[in-house]
Parts: sequence; structure tokens; C-alpha cells
Amino acid sequence: MTTAACPGSFDPVTHGHLDVVARAAALFDEVVVLVVPNPSKRGLLAPERRAALLEEVLPGALGAAAERVRVELVPGGLLVDACRRVGAACVVKGVRGGADVDAEVPQALMNRHLSGLETLLLPGDPRWQHVASSLVREIARLGGDVDDLVPPAVAAAVHEALAER
Amino acid sequence: MTTAACPGSFDPVTHGHLDVVARAAALFDEVVVLVVPNPSKRGLLAPERRAALLEEVLPGALGAAAERVRVELVPGGLLVDACRRVGAACVVKGVRGGADVDAEVPQALMNRHLSGLETLLLPGDPRWQHVASSLVREIARLGGDVDDLVPPAVAAAVHEALAER
Amino acid sequence: MTTAACPGSFDPVTHGHLDVVARAAALFDEVVVLVVPNPSKRGLLAPERRAALLEEVLPGALGAAAERVRVELVPGGLLVDACRRVGAACVVKGVRGGADVDAEVPQALMNRHLSGLETLLLPGDPRWQHVASSLVREIARLGGDVDDLVPPAVAAAVHEALAER
Amino acid sequence: MTTAACPGSFDPVTHGHLDVVARAAALFDEVVVLVVPNPSKRGLLAPERRAALLEEVLPGALGAAAERVRVELVPGGLLVDACRRVGAACVVKGVRGGADVDAEVPQALMNRHLSGLETLLLPGDPRWQHVASSLVREIARLGGDVDDLVPPAVAAAVHEALAER
Amino acid sequence: MTTAACPGSFDPVTHGHLDVVARAAALFDEVVVLVVPNPSKRGLLAPERRAALLEEVLPGALGAAAERVRVELVPGGLLVDACRRVGAACVVKGVRGGADVDAEVPQALMNRHLSGLETLLLPGDPRWQHVASSLVREIARLGGDVDDLVPPAVAAAVHEALAER
Amino acid sequence: MTTAACPGSFDPVTHGHLDVVARAAALFDEVVVLVVPNPSKRGLLAPERRAALLEEVLPGALGAAAERVRVELVPGGLLVDACRRVGAACVVKGVRGGADVDAEVPQALMNRHLSGLETLLLPGDPRWQHVASSLVREIARLGGDVDDLVPPAVAAAVHEALAER
Repeated sequence: MTTAACPGSFDPVTHGHLDVVARAAALFDEVVVLVVPNPSKRGLLAPERRAALLEEVLPGALGAAAERVRVELVPGGLLVDACRRVGAACVVKGVRGGADVDAEVPQALMNRHLSGLETLLLPGDPRWQHVASSLVREIARLGGDVDDLVPPAVAAAVHEALAER
Repeated sequence: MTTAACPGSFDPVTHGHLDVVARAAALFDEVVVLVVPNPSKRGLLAPERRAALLEEVLPGALGAAAERVRVELVPGGLLVDACRRVGAACVVKGVRGGADVDAEVPQALMNRHLSGLETLLLPGDPRWQHVASSLVREIARLGGDVDDLVPPAVAAAVHEALAER
Repeated sequence: MTTAACPGSFDPVTHGHLDVVARAAALFDEVVVLVVPNPSKRGLLAPERRAALLEEVLPGALGAAAERVRVELVPGGLLVDACRRVGAACVVKGVRGGADVDAEVPQALMNRHLSGLETLLLPGDPRWQHVASSLVREIARLGGDVDDLVPPAVAAAVHEALAER
Repeated sequence: MTTAACPGSFDPVTHGHLDVVARAAALFDEVVVLVVPNPSKRGLLAPERRAALLEEVLPGALGAAAERVRVELVPGGLLVDACRRVGAACVVKGVRGGADVDAEVPQALMNRHLSGLETLLLPGDPRWQHVASSLVREIARLGGDVDDLVPPAVAAAVHEALAER
Repeated sequence: MTTAACPGSFDPVTHGHLDVVARAAALFDEVVVLVVPNPSKRGLLAPERRAALLEEVLPGALGAAAERVRVELVPGGLLVDACRRVGAACVVKGVRGGADVDAEVPQALMNRHLSGLETLLLPGDPRWQHVASSLVREIARLGGDVDDLVPPAVAAAVHEALAER
Repeated sequence: MTTAACPGSFDPVTHGHLDVVARAAALFDEVVVLVVPNPSKRGLLAPERRAALLEEVLPGALGAAAERVRVELVPGGLLVDACRRVGAACVVKGVRGGADVDAEVPQALMNRHLSGLETLLLPGDPRWQHVASSLVREIARLGGDVDDLVPPAVAAAVHEALAER
């Protein structure tokens, strides 16, 4: 049985992320979505909220395949340690273009160096090529509509978090 | 009649920016230069000062074509809303190389998604390939000469702003 | 009045090409689609056939905007000369990613050097990101289905040309 | 059970290829190495010879994991059809850098479009970053030493094929 | 006699840096390693500590060639001024891939513009392709092992600096 | 004394090539321009003619520095062997952008692997960014003016060679 990890900050989860998780779930026996907050950024949603939203929207996005996907919050430490803990033999990361690849390859080589963890880069659905969490936060902050970029529950959570600021 | 927008933070405007505005003015009936301050950075020049400098240097850089160019300060909100307000059907952005393109394409796709606004990427004059506002600020701050990179009035404003810090 | 040129070898025209021509037609007063055969390749369809197919499928793809689009076959010579002949002030080229940009920028700079002709790069619809004439020819040759990549009349012409080989 | 395909022209197989196959074999239940000759190039080794060399060198390179790897020669047709025939749910391709990714992504999107076949890009071992079949053929042709780039049996086959020309 | 400069923030020096300095020392009569702290980041090691570590580890890494290499701390100002002061006719920078090149070329062109200083980009040893000072700091901070990425004295200094925070 | 090699096919030499040779001559004691014909292409000018043109135009382009530059025709074999023969410790190659770098780095790593030969990539003058021998040949063939791209003697040779075809 092979377990793959899909790590990210998921602040918030987008249709682009869900597309990659769904594709990974079709190829591996088990997928663990790892919510890894960036320690040097405050973020918009609390990490626990990000994980809860993922659990809420995964069944709608993946259907029956969601049964083979679970969500874990990574409190800190190295990604390779979190992967070892959840039994993941590889990381699957969506890539949207050249800049994504340039950023992922050094991380991938470092993770392989540290523990033998492999990284597989998955070209995402071009429909979501322009969708990044940072753009979703920026558009929502500026009053734009993010309903086509994230599931409804996520859009509501983003607007709520912005209102509380 | 087609109006094009040339958005940027213009902190400060450089010969590279003026080159792109001049080319856009030769192709479209009207060009609106949109001064869009980055809300998460303090910047060197006040946004009003950036817009005033643009208005001051455009006639010298564009000649008669400057009559079809106007400058607007965008107080906040989405770029697509600012473009709708000024009647711009497209955005024209100069690109200097691969990194610029990697940064512009997701923004371009997102703006098209949000409102149908198109983005045209214009390869800039290679003479200005190395000229970025951030490099101009850094060189001036370190005591270097920026007279070949920006018009005289802009160089004076940059040195003055650095002295006031 | 500004005329834009959309040059290409169009062997055959794809949904990706039609997407770019439609966007150009929304921004410029007139668009001339220039069929420029590659002199060093034999190609699949005869250049006259490529131009005729374009004229056949443009109304269906562009609707009323097709009235402002015309097709010209370029028998030879420099692109800048063809553009001068048809009165085009700029070239509009779709770009799908970094490799396209790397190929287009030197051509763009050379055309500007030769005659002042400008080139605008237009990020295409991500739905057609994978669609290139060469892939269409290869898939059809290997017995694959190209009905989602090109209009029906084009698919028929491609299969016919392959059968005649 | 998930089967992955590792397609390539393998003219000849290099240490870089073997590195990618070994990694894929560690992640998937079964790996099928697909020898896909380029129909528009004559090549150096006959396709049957390439497949035979792969079968000869895989046990030495992969050890026990070679039992889960088999080699198939693809006589022609679409890659997606060959993958369906061998039961592969995904393609695993090694990538050495940006140019490889630029070439693979359109192929990956096209294969997904044609049949739902997924493609996973695997950053190869940097030790083999400079090793490509075309460089191996060129170096051997010019009298250089390729013993560090390919297994001994492959080096012998390359030199023999060059001598027969 | 030609002197080359190898500038960097060296926070901390890695095996990748030492590889580039060693290659530069084999090609030029004299190499000056310039420790240039980033004025807008606090950093982990004090700049004087970074320079002292370089002087400590260079003999072990370069052998006799270390005699032609000296280390200078740049207190501030433009890189071109520091190079003029130490008599360097060119800068040698290691590049690991496309993203590095995209970042270095504008700096290189600006430095040539400011003072005629040339920049030579040296493809580093692929073994160190994944090694960046920022990754070393991050891994050490998260409790990972950096012994394969930096010399022992540097690893000790990094762990000590993290403990003092 | 350090000798650098500037290899290329020089079919024909352009202002871009001369710019790179001049910069190399300012940094190294001796520069050997290696004319390396591509064995799989016929080319426009005979290799001997390319070398003779280089010798003819170098003094005008480099002035006194031309005394430290010599031209050698490489009849065949590996570049590393030619470099060893002329005593070159490194190769200096001009790069115009990302695509050039993507092509040069694997060659650079292979040459280092084969014989320890180093490669230094030199960002060329942006004024010549669009100038490639292939574009010069194409423009001249299509009747365009290449007088701004190559020295007069080279332009004459190109037109003569095209007329003889």
C-alpha cells in the first residue's frame, strides 16, 4: 500500500488544490493532506480552521474517493518528519507553470536528501492555472467575488475572517 | 475607440515604464496610466507624488502622443474595477524576461476571469531590460547614480525622499 | 484605425488560434490573419487550403466580429513587409507558457528592429494550453480523435490530407 | 494495484533513465518501460535492441525491484493507447530542468485530454542532470568516453552501432 | 593579473558556495569573497561571524588554492564600489537553475551599466543544486541535520546561533 | 596565464558574438575563437570562410585587444579535446535569455564531466539580444537588411553566398 502526502498551507483551500488531491487519490491507495502553516506568516485563517474546511469540502469535491483521503495538521518541524509519521512514501504537488517548478525542485531534492522522500509534480488542470490562495485572499480583501475559485463554505470562511480583522 | 490601461506602482517611474507607455500610446486611442500603490508596502514616494511625477515627465518622453495619455491614482480595490471605471478594455504590461512573464500570466488570467479584462504583454526595449523601480531605489539609497535610469525630475525626487527619511 | 496582424502557419488552425483571433478582434478595429507557411517544411495542408479553412470557420467562432477579420496568404518574404502591405501596426501572438515566450521575444525584437513593428503577447485561454498544430497533426496521424481541438471542417480536412499521403 | 508507465525512446538507455525507473518502481506496484521510437528519426539502435538492452541492464540497476518492472516495445500509435493496453494509470517522466518541464507539460495535458491518463514529473538525481541520450550518441560518435553515463553493455552496443555505420 | 569577486550574504556559507569559489580560484589569479549582508534582513549569523567562518573553512575546501583567495566584509554601499576597491574586474556567481539566472541577469546588467563590471555565471556542481543558505537555516531551525550541506564548523555555528535566539 | 575559448558555429559571426569575444578578451590573457561547424547541417558559409571573416572583422571590433585573440577552425571531434589542444581552461558563452541558459547548462555539465573544462556564461549586451546567426540568415534570404546586425564584410559575404545558391 502506498500513501502519498499533499502538503500545503491551504490558506484557504482552492479548487486548484482539490483538483490535485482528487488526481492523487485516483493513483495512490491513501492520500494524507498535510496542512503546514508558514511559521513566518500570520495567515488569514487559523490552521485548525483550514484543516476543518478541507475536511468539510473534500467529500463534495472527491465523492467516494474522499474515503481514502485524510487531513492532518502539522504543528511544526520538517516536512520529511511529518511524512514519516503518516507513512507517506512520496509527496504529490500540483504545478501550474515554470515558476512553480523552479520553486518545487530544490525543495524536492532537499527532501530526498534528508530522508529519501520522493516528490512527484502533477501538472494541474489548466482551468485552475490562475488560482492561488494568495490571489483568493487578495481578491476577497479588495471586495471581489471568489465564488468560482473556492467552494462556498470556503468563500464564506474567507469573508468572515476578513470582516473580523 | 479603444482605451488601454498601463498599471504599476511607479515608485518611481523609470525610462522602462515610459518606453512601454509610449508604445501603448502608438497602438491605442487612449492610454490611462494607473498608479496602483502596493497596500502591503510603505514605498518610497507618496502615491500622489508618483502620479504628479508621471504627469510631469510624460510630455518630454512622448511628445505629442502624451495628449492621449492620462494618469489616474487608484485609491484601492481591484484592478478590474479601476479599468472598468476608466473605460479600459485591456491592460498593457511591459515584460523584460521570463520571470516577468511568470508573474504576469496568473494575474492576467485572474483579471480575465473576474471581468473579461484582457492583458497584452509587450516586450520592452532591451536597453531598459535591467531597469526596475526596486533597483533604482536600491542604487540611489546606496549612493549610486540613477541619472541614466529615470528622468531628471524623478532622480531629484528620489534623492529628496531618501534624504527626508 | 488600428489594424493588428495574427500570423501563423495554421497547419491546421486550432481552437487555440481562434481564441486568440477572437480576443484580438475585440481590441482592434481590424485583424488580418496572415497564413505564413514555413518555407523549410512541407507541411500537411496546402497553404491555400489552410487559408480557406480559416475563412470557413471564422464566422462560426467569432460571430459578428468576423466581419472585421480577413485572411491573407503570405507568399514569402519578411513578416514585417507583409504587415506593412496589409497596414498592420502590430502583431498579436497567443502565448501558452514560458517556451512560447522564449521563442517569440527574439522574433518580436527583430521585427521592431527591422521596421518598428510592435508585437503584443496575449496569454491564451488555459483550456487550449495543450493545443498546438503539431500535436493535432501527430494525434490524427496516430489515429487519435482531434474533434475537441479543431472545428469539424478542420478535422475533416486533416483526416483527408492524411489519407491522401 | 497501480501500474505506472515510463515511456521514452531509450536510444540508448542511460543512468538517468534507470534512476527514474528505479524511483517509480519504489512507488508503484508495477512499472512498464515503454520503448517508443520516434517515427520521424532513424535513430542509432534498432528499437528491438533498445528494449533488449533495457531488459539486460534493469536487474543490475534495480536489484530485486526489477521483478516488478517489464519492458514493452510500442510499435506505433498513441501513447495513451499503449498505456491502456498495458494497464498503466499514469506516466512517470524524469525532469532535469525547466526545458524538460516546458516540453512535458503540453504532452501531459494532451494525454489527459485524450484519455484521462495522468502524468507525474519526477525530478531526477542531479548527478545525471547532464545525461541525455542525444549527448551520449554525440560524445560516442566524436570518440569520447561514455562509460560513466551508461551501463557497460549499453556503451558496447553504442560503439558497435557506430562502427557499423 | 585578473581578480574576480564572489559576492554573497553567506548566512551561512555552504558546500555550494565553496564549490563555486574553488572553481573561480582555478580560473583567476585572485579571488575576493565579498560578504555582503542584506541590509533589510536581520540574518542568523552576524556578518563578522560569516566572514570568520569563511576564512576558517576555505583552506580545508580549497587546499593550496586558498592562498589566492581572501575574504572581505562589505560594510555597505554598492557592489560595484566594493569591487573597484578590491580591484575585481568581474563577479563570478554560481547558478543552480533558471530561477537563479532570472535573478542574476538584471543585477549583472545593472552592474555593467553602473561601472562596466562584468558578471560571469558558473553552473554549479549538480550535487549542491538543492543547497541554499535559506534551506540550511530552515532545516536547522526545524531540527534537521545539515552536516552534509555545510562544513562541520559552520554547522556548529548555525546550531549555536539558533540556540541563542 | 589563462586562456578562454569562445566556441560557436559563426555562420555568420554577428555583432552579438563580437560583443562576447570583446568582453572575454578584457578578462582573460588569451582568447581562442573556435569555429565549430555543426556536422549535421550544411550551413550557409563554408567553415573556412567563417574563420576568415572572423579574422577580418575582429581588429575593427576589438581594437588593440584583438592581438590577444586568435581564431581556430575545429575540424571535428569533441569540444573538450579542441580546448585541451589550444590550452583553454574554460569556455565563455554569451547568453541572451532563459532558453540559451537551458541549452548551455547541460553542455557545460557534460564538458566538465568529460575533462574538467569549466563554462562561464556571460549575459550579452541587451542591444544584441535579438541577434542570432539563424535570424541573420533568414532575414537576408527574405531580402531584409542585415547591416545593423553584422559587420559590412560579413553582410557582403552572406548576400554573396545566398546569390550563389
